[in-house]
Parts: sequence; C-alpha cells; structure tokens
Amino acid sequence: MSKKQVDFESVLKHIYIELNKEVDRGQVASYIPELENVNPKHFGIHLRPIDDSSIGIGDFCTPFSIQSICKVLSLAHALQLLGADLWKRVGVDPTHEPFNFLSLTEKGNGIPNNPFINAGALVICDMLYSQLENPEKDFLDFVRNLSNDNSIDYDKKVYESEKTNGHRNHATASLLKSLNNLHNDVEQVLDFYYLQCSLRMSCEQLSKSFYFLMNGGKNIVGKEFLSPSQTKRLNAIMLTCGFYNDVGGFAFNVGLPAKSGVGGGIIAIHPKKYCIATWSPGLNQKGNSLLGIKALEMFTTETELSIF
Amino acid sequence: MSKKQVDFESVLKHIYIELNKEVDRGQVASYIPELENVNPKHFGIHLRPIDDSSIGIGDFCTPFSIQSICKVLSLAHALQLLGADLWKRVGVDPTHEPFNFLSLTEKGNGIPNNPFINAGALVICDMLYSQLENPEKDFLDFVRNLSNDNSIDYDKKVYESEKTNGHRNHATASLLKSLNNLHNDVEQVLDFYYLQCSLRMSCEQLSKSFYFLMNGGKNIVGKEFLSPSQTKRLNAIMLTCGFYNDVGGFAFNVGLPAKSGVGGGIIAIHPKKYCIATWSPGLNQKGNSLLGIKALEMFTTETELSIF
Amino acid sequence: MSKKQVDFESVLKHIYIELNKEVDRGQVASYIPELENVNPKHFGIHLRPIDDSSIGIGDFCTPFSIQSICKVLSLAHALQLLGADLWKRVGVDPTHEPFNFLSLTEKGNGIPNNPFINAGALVICDMLYSQLENPEKDFLDFVRNLSNDNSIDYDKKVYESEKTNGHRNHATASLLKSLNNLHNDVEQVLDFYYLQCSLRMSCEQLSKSFYFLMNGGKNIVGKEFLSPSQTKRLNAIMLTCGFYNDVGGFAFNVGLPAKSGVGGGIIAIHPKKYCIATWSPGLNQKGNSLLGIKALEMFTTETELSIF
Amino acid sequence: MSKKQVDFESVLKHIYIELNKEVDRGQVASYIPELENVNPKHFGIHLRPIDDSSIGIGDFCTPFSIQSICKVLSLAHALQLLGADLWKRVGVDPTHEPFNFLSLTEKGNGIPNNPFINAGALVICDMLYSQLENPEKDFLDFVRNLSNDNSIDYDKKVYESEKTNGHRNHATASLLKSLNNLHNDVEQVLDFYYLQCSLRMSCEQLSKSFYFLMNGGKNIVGKEFLSPSQTKRLNAIMLTCGFYNDVGGFAFNVGLPAKSGVGGGIIAIHPKKYCIATWSPGLNQKGNSLLGIKALEMFTTETELSIF
Repeated sequence: MSKKQVDFESVLKHIYIELNKEVDRGQVASYIPELENVNPKHFGIHLRPIDDSSIGIGDFCTPFSIQSICKVLSLAHALQLLGADLWKRVGVDPTHEPFNFLSLTEKGNGIPNNPFINAGALVICDMLYSQLENPEKDFLDFVRNLSNDNSIDYDKKVYESEKTNGHRNHATASLLKSLNNLHNDVEQVLDFYYLQCSLRMSCEQLSKSFYFLMNGGKNIVGKEFLSPSQTKRLNAIMLTCGFYNDVGGFAFNVGLPAKSGVGGGIIAIHPKKYCIATWSPGLNQKGNSLLGIKALEMFTTETELSIF
Repeated sequence: MSKKQVDFESVLKHIYIELNKEVDRGQVASYIPELENVNPKHFGIHLRPIDDSSIGIGDFCTPFSIQSICKVLSLAHALQLLGADLWKRVGVDPTHEPFNFLSLTEKGNGIPNNPFINAGALVICDMLYSQLENPEKDFLDFVRNLSNDNSIDYDKKVYESEKTNGHRNHATASLLKSLNNLHNDVEQVLDFYYLQCSLRMSCEQLSKSFYFLMNGGKNIVGKEFLSPSQTKRLNAIMLTCGFYNDVGGFAFNVGLPAKSGVGGGIIAIHPKKYCIATWSPGLNQKGNSLLGIKALEMFTTETELSIF
Repeated sequence: MSKKQVDFESVLKHIYIELNKEVDRGQVASYIPELENVNPKHFGIHLRPIDDSSIGIGDFCTPFSIQSICKVLSLAHALQLLGADLWKRVGVDPTHEPFNFLSLTEKGNGIPNNPFINAGALVICDMLYSQLENPEKDFLDFVRNLSNDNSIDYDKKVYESEKTNGHRNHATASLLKSLNNLHNDVEQVLDFYYLQCSLRMSCEQLSKSFYFLMNGGKNIVGKEFLSPSQTKRLNAIMLTCGFYNDVGGFAFNVGLPAKSGVGGGIIAIHPKKYCIATWSPGLNQKGNSLLGIKALEMFTTETELSIF
Repeated sequence: MSKKQVDFESVLKHIYIELNKEVDRGQVASYIPELENVNPKHFGIHLRPIDDSSIGIGDFCTPFSIQSICKVLSLAHALQLLGADLWKRVGVDPTHEPFNFLSLTEKGNGIPNNPFINAGALVICDMLYSQLENPEKDFLDFVRNLSNDNSIDYDKKVYESEKTNGHRNHATASLLKSLNNLHNDVEQVLDFYYLQCSLRMSCEQLSKSFYFLMNGGKNIVGKEFLSPSQTKRLNAIMLTCGFYNDVGGFAFNVGLPAKSGVGGGIIAIHPKKYCIATWSPGLNQKGNSLLGIKALEMFTTETELSIF
C-alpha cells in the first residue's frame, strides 16, 4: 500500500467511523474542573501531509487544553534560543516512570532524564524565563509565529486551576531548586509552566504548529525555526520520551514520534511525510488518549506509513 | 542533501579516513580471552541500500563475534514460530540499566522488560528451545537461510569461554526460573544462549542477514520471514531497546533502529532505504563500539538519512 | 565490670581526655551560618544515671542547636495528645536513606517510614499544629515542663536561616500534601518545623529533658508524660530509626537507643539505667557527631552497659 | 511489675491459653512438602532465665526445622573463627526487603547488607566452608557443643527438598560469585547452606543453644564461645536485622533481639535476663510465626521486661 498513492481521506473516514462506535473511551482527567467538565464524546482528527493538503474529520476545529504537548513547543523555543547548551541541564533518556513523578534522586546532579517529564519541562521553563524579557507575551508570540495563527491563546481559567492543584509540581520544582538546577524563583517558574500548559488549540491548529517538525525545521509558511539536525533530534526525543512509561508500547504499536497531553490531544510526526493530530478527552491508565492511540495505530497499520 | 542522489561511496570513504585517525578506540571486551585478544585496530563498514548495491570499506569481510546482535535474529525466529503470543512472556519497554543487569524484581511477574536485555533474551532462547527439535542445528539453519549464506557458523571456542564466565547470566536465568518464566532446564537454556552469542559474521554478512528488516520482512533473495507489521514492530523495539542504557543518546545522535554487541559490531536499519553494519572492537563505557557509533552518527548527519 | 559498681566519673574523664586529643573532628554543618560559625573545638558530655546523680565534663553547660533531636520531643508530645492513632499516618520502619531524602514514592500512600526522617517529622508537626491552640508557645511549654527548665528557648536566628534554606524540606512537604498526608498549609507546617529544630539546649539540659525515656515515661521530678509501654516503643524507634542510614552501625558499635542532630548533639538512653548527652559540632559523612559516636562507643564498651 | 519478682510460669500459662484459642494461625510454609505437612496446631514456648531455671509449655519438646534461625549459629561460628575480619565481606545494615530477595545490586561491591538476609548468610556459609575441614560434621559438632546436646541433627529430607527448590538462592549465590564475594563453588556453598537450614531443634533445645547470647558469650555449661563485646554486637544485629522487613515493627511491639525461621520458630534474647523460644508453624504475611510474635509481645508487655 505504501508504494501506491494512499487515499488518506477514506482511511481517516474509516477510522473515525469505527472508533466512534467505541463505548469505552477511558477516563477524562479530573484533577481540575476545566478538564473534568469536557464532554468525553468529543473526537477529532486532523492530518496534514507535507504538501499541506489538509484533511480533518470530527471535532478537528474545536480548541482544547493541549497541556503537556506544550512541552515540545517550549523545548523548541529553548533550542532556538540556547542551542546545544541546553543539554547541560537536561538529558535525553527515557524513564520508566509516570509523567508526574519527581524522577529525580536527592543525591543526583539534579539533571532530569529528559525534557518531557515534568522535572525536565520545569528546567526548560526556567531557561526560557531567564531568556525572555516578557515570558508570558514572548512565548505566546513564539507559538503564534510558529503556527502562523494569531488566534491561539492561553486559557486563564485552566491556568488558575492548575496553580491551586500543583503540590506535586511544587515538590518537583523545590527539589530542582535544592539541587541547583532552577535559577529563578520556584513560584515564578511554576506560574510560567502552568501558563504554557493552559494553551488551547484545535487539532487543525496543532498540526499547523507542529508542521515544522516534519519539514526539517521550517514552518507552514517556510520560516525556519530549527535546523534539520535540531529537528531530527527533537523528533528522536519525542519517540524515546514522548509517552512517559508507555514509550515502548507506543513505538511498537504506532511507530511515530509523538506527544500527548492530559487534555486528550496527541500530535504525531512522520518526518518529511505528514503530521497528524487527534483529540479524544478520555485517557487510558497511563494518561494518554485512549481513542487517539487507537486511531494512530490504525492509521500507520492501514497506510503502512510509520517510520519503521 | 537527502533530495539529490547521495554519493554513499565518498561519504563512507570520508568517514572511514577521518575515524581511522582516532587514537582513542575505547576498550576491547576482556571477560573472555577470545574477545580480549582481538586486534583493536580493526575497523570495517558495510552499507547495503535497498537496491542491494553494496559498498564495503576497511575490514568489512573479516568475521567477528556478533554477541548480542544475535538477540535480534533469535527474536525474529521466535516471532516467526510463535507470533504475538511471544509478548505474553516478555515486554517492549526500554530499561535504564546496563545489558547484563538482572532487571527483574523478585516480587515481579518475571516478565523481562524487553527481549534485548539478557533476561529477555534468555526467555526468547527458552521459547526457541521448546519449539526446535534440534536447537543448535535448527537455529543455525534459520540464520543461514535468512542471510542466504551457508558459511556462517558458531565459534565453539567463544561458546566454551562464555560458559565458564557466566555467573551473572546464571543468576538471571535462575531468577527467571524461580519466577516461572523459564520452562526448560537452566543449564540447557544458558548453553543454547551462549551458542547463539558465539555466531561469527563479517559486516558484509551482517548487512545481508538484516536485509529483511529494511525490506518489510523479505530477505535478500525475496523470501518472506516476517510480515511488514512484524518487521515494523521489531524495528521499533530495536530503536527503543537496542542500546540498553544509551537508547536515548543513540536515537538522539544517530536516529536509526540498531543493535550492538560486545564484539564491537553494530547493525543499523533505515527501513525501506538501507542497512549498515560497522565493526570496531573498542567499546565505550556503556559497552557499545566507540568508532561504530561515531561512524553512524557521521553517516546520518552527512546524508540526512535518519528516520527522524 | 557491669556487676561491680562502675566508676562513671573516671570512665568519662578518660574518654574526654582521649578524644580531646583527636585532630580529625569531622565537618561542622555549613548550610546555615549559625551552624557553620560554631567553634569545632567544643566538646561536652553529660551523664545522668537513674538516681539523678549527675556527671558533666567539658562544655556540658553550653547550649547549642539541638536540630533533629527535637523530633523525639515532638513525637513524645504527639503520642501524649493522640496516642496510638498517630501510627495511622507514619510508620516505624528503618530506612536506608539519609535524613534529608524525601523517602516517599509518588505512587505510595504518603505514609513516611518513620517519625525521624524529615518526611515523618513533618507529619508529626502537622498533627501537633492541628492539636495545639498556640503551636509556638504550647510546644515550648511542653519542652520546658518535660525538662523542668524554663530557660530553654527557640533560637530565632537559626529559625530564620532554616526558612531561607529549606527547598528540600519544601519538596518533602509538598509531596506529602499531594499525597494527602499533610492537613495544614505547607508553609505553616514548615515554619513550625523550623521553629522546633531551632531549640537550644546544653548537654545538661538534654539529659534532663530525656530523663523520662529511661524512667518509664516519668520526668526528672516524677511527672508522668508517657506510659511505660509508650516509652518502650519510643525507645525502640530510636534504636531502629534514630541514626538514619547508620542505624545498623550505631546499634552494632554503641548499642543504645539514641538520636542525633546536625548541631553535633547526641542523646542516648539506657532504659532504667542512665541517659547520656554528648556534643561535638564536627560531623561524620553520615551527618552524625564524629566525637559523640566515639565517646558513646567507648562508654558502652568500657562499662559493658549497653542494652545488648 | 518489673521490680517485684515476676511469676513467669503464670504469665506463660496465661499467654498459652489465650493464644491457643486463636483460629487464625497464619499460613504454614508450603514451598517444600516437609514444611507444608507440619500440623499447624503445634504451639510451644520455652523460657530459660539466666539462672537456668527452665519453664516449658505446650509442644516445647517437639523438634522442628529451625530454618533461618541457623543463620545466627552460623554467624556465631564464623565470628569465633574469623573475628572482626568477617565484616569485610558482609555489612550490619537493616534492609527493607523480604528475606529471599537478592538485595544486591549488580554494580555494587557484592557485600550483602547483613548476615541474616539470604545473600549475607550465603557469604557466611562460604567463609565457614573455607575454614572447616569437614563442613558438614564440623558445623554440627559446633552446634552440639554450643547447646551441650548431642541429639541435635540435620534433617536430610528437608535438605534434599530445599536443594530441588532453590532457584532463588541459586540466583543469589551466582550473583555473589559474579561480584567476587563467593570463594567456593556455587553448588557446594548452596549445599552447605541447605544443610544448616535443615537443623531440627525443639523450643527447649533452641533456648539451650542460644543461652550464650544472654550470657555474655558463655554457654549453658559455662564454656566461652564469644567475648562479651562480640555477643553485644551479635544481639544488636539480631535486633536491627533479624526480622527482615518487619524489623521496625518487631522492635516496636516486642522489643527484644530475635530471629525467626519459616519453620515457625522464633528465638528471642533479653541480655543478662532470659532467652525464650516459641514455635507455631503458621506464618504471617512477612513470613514470621504469627502466634510466636503475639506470644512474645504479650510476654514483654505483661512482664515489662524488654530491652527498651
């Protein structure tokens, strides 16, 4: 199938119809009301091949809280600003632990395993906080430029809720501070982190924002954000670290670099071929969108278009 | 560079000349005399693109002990014989630990994280031992058929040496047995395991044997050994588990599914494009060939042909 | 020797003279200036047999920061107020880890191993904070009553310094909060904890305060604070948990229930026989007073009066 | 109560009658038929005060398999032969893990935490095996001399059964061997270990054998086996390491140095006062005799005669 022209539209339609029949859609995240109250019936997919032909199905235009997916954007911006120096303060190793574990040892050097566990994302936030004159505005500008879409914005209600629920993240940030790998004030870094996590996008906006990762670092209007080598490395980290303690299973079943968020979104990349965003708010036991993973597994199986 | 025709030959020549200047070639494995006595100056590369045009440089025709690289062949044969049932007894998750750690907890279910740590490879051996009428002969036949090369053979001296040095592996196998995930006798499974690890191949033979993994499951003469879906999954496991505690770094720097052995060999796959074998006996601190990794990193950087 | 009358005074004098010759006195705690600036030459011992005959030598009247030794007093007060209910929120198991490790797992139930690691002490503080009308005053009153000494007080400079250096403790408290084992506000519990740790006592005051633990729960003027059974249990926890990751070694070498603090103090108890306090500010690598441990080891060896 | 003369006989009778009413007696060890087939109704206690007045109740004369209790005798003999040199190859630190865990890390130095986890006991066996001319006979002679009882013997059926069930111990011994902390052949050390574990004694014989630990090293007929200082240290290790992952709870509830075996026996020591042996084959979830622990807790509570 991979050699002939794949009819993406009928594959997506088939997947959408099949999965929409599913009764078990997992559990919607419940730790803040803004996520808990989302209708679990939402389901959307948006595929953006390298030629920028665009195919959406279901709720692909409805914005949702992208949550941890923002960690990729945050890392991309830090790479832009700091280059390889960034890797002095965060590693590129997969972990076995859930995303919200501290994953730091008190006698260690305070360098988180990778930028996609919370500890690593907080270090990246700390770097950006030091680099940006106006972190809140500047980061939003970066995302809008990257996606070529000025309608993307933070969700201040989500942000406020996250702040009041953040004891675990506070523990992680305090431990990083005690290990000298957080340069700014704990509260300020956490604030900025919650702000980033509160970004809202639809599947269509997500695939637009992440276009640069299948296009060697250039965004949807051809502006270069990262070099091809940086892009390759960022994709590699997504594959080995993007799904926390389900990295092995996701690579095995889907076979694409990808990142998920507890809002139910997933973005996946086939370098030089396509990127695809899915949204279904129900999560599996490891905190990843149940229908989203199924949709992506069906997609790479039916099209034979995985990176493996 | 990836869009125009890459001149593989000049890229390989350049890499070979550059790396042959290196004084630090790491440490040759020293736990058995057969490995310790190998000349650390050996260095060979063999590239086999999908069109089976073939380019070798340096010591690409000299056979060496492939050691853990055999774990991929063993897994492929088990998949052929048992299909997805195999995954009931071994996982697909990366570990943080070195290859020769037990990586099993006494209160666990005895299911090793993946088939490439020693514990997982022993379980695969145990499965094959149960399936094959004459394990020693049958497995060699499988490898010879796969590679279309009847000159491939075990190295009985290496096999004998491994046996007398195997306390760590004996511990792993005994623990698996106590956790009911080893069905045959501990000594017999270890024997079969050491035999597999003793296989000798040159870079040219390695790239021939692993051709099926870039070719959707069909070997160099078009015979199908695995389905495209099985091939995709095996490649995914190599990427997430093939380099033990250096998985993240190897994906980040090289960006190819690959497997290494303490004999100094590495085989790497770019599905549907090429496979490439390197050999240099000196190892880095994580037990992988120092020059081999450098060669592969230079190769994917210069050709821009990684999976990411 | 244990059968005839031991001449405590000459034993103590001998120990004091011998150890005062020691050049290596370990490292004074340096994380806050109030501890860092203490003269490392200080050395005092105070022995208080059950008959309340009292023998002091060296700097036994100089007050110092008792630090973690306060955890025993805090636990005693909580036991007084809450009884065995207390053990629903904290365990009695030794740990292998240094005192300032979090020693909590994110997927655990939030119940610290024992009340002498920081996590456990914070839970005890949280209980007291809920029970006491005026925590600061009430706890000081408890300590003064217990020791029958109204001159004992907090050191507000130490308290202020601890507060600005407490990222690790903040991490521990935040993690406890996220695991629902901290009922009050994180900042308030930490404040109360630092206040307790700032208590100042001399060796003579320490042996007075801890008299109740060798006397079946009754203090130096015969007032009952704990029952004999509670006293037995508290002594048992000191033995199995009082020296963090040096519990085994301290029991092996000294053989007494005891508790140390980073201020260089140690209090040790021989139930029904004597209690003994030592002070020398230099610490060994595990954070316990170097000379103090040596003095106690010499004392129980020369008198043959350990609990074993 | 502790000050007046305690009427041991009526205390023991009371405890025996109360506990014999218990319906839940835990689970008899089932990994070998010789233990599985023991009648769970057995219950015996034998108390031996320092004056060698002797009080037995219930099945205190019936011999049973002492299992891990032998580790104390083995350690005592090794201390006799090697003195403090012994501690170069085994530590004195409590562990959190069950007795049959490996409790060794592959990158560690191969020094088990303490001599009472299986790994440590195997190292002690290895030492004895090197020291003794005829290990089987010499060790039995040592035990018979110590207890002044030539009727004590191995149970060869238990020994044979252990051997066929020892994959976990084989794993531990192999790992020790790979870490260079086992000098003799793995199989031979395991054999000697299983032999020691197969020793049979009654409660009355146990309290006789362990008399030396409450008597400063001298056995029941006044022969010195260890020095007072060695005896103190051995008792300390029993308290901090004798109950595996229940050390804290046992010290908290009972408050005596003690050692248990999966055969349902427990020996406990109050230095200079008494030793007491209990036997009830049913085990709690941590593998210690359910009724035995209850009996000892009642005994130290009612007599107020614990070491704390």
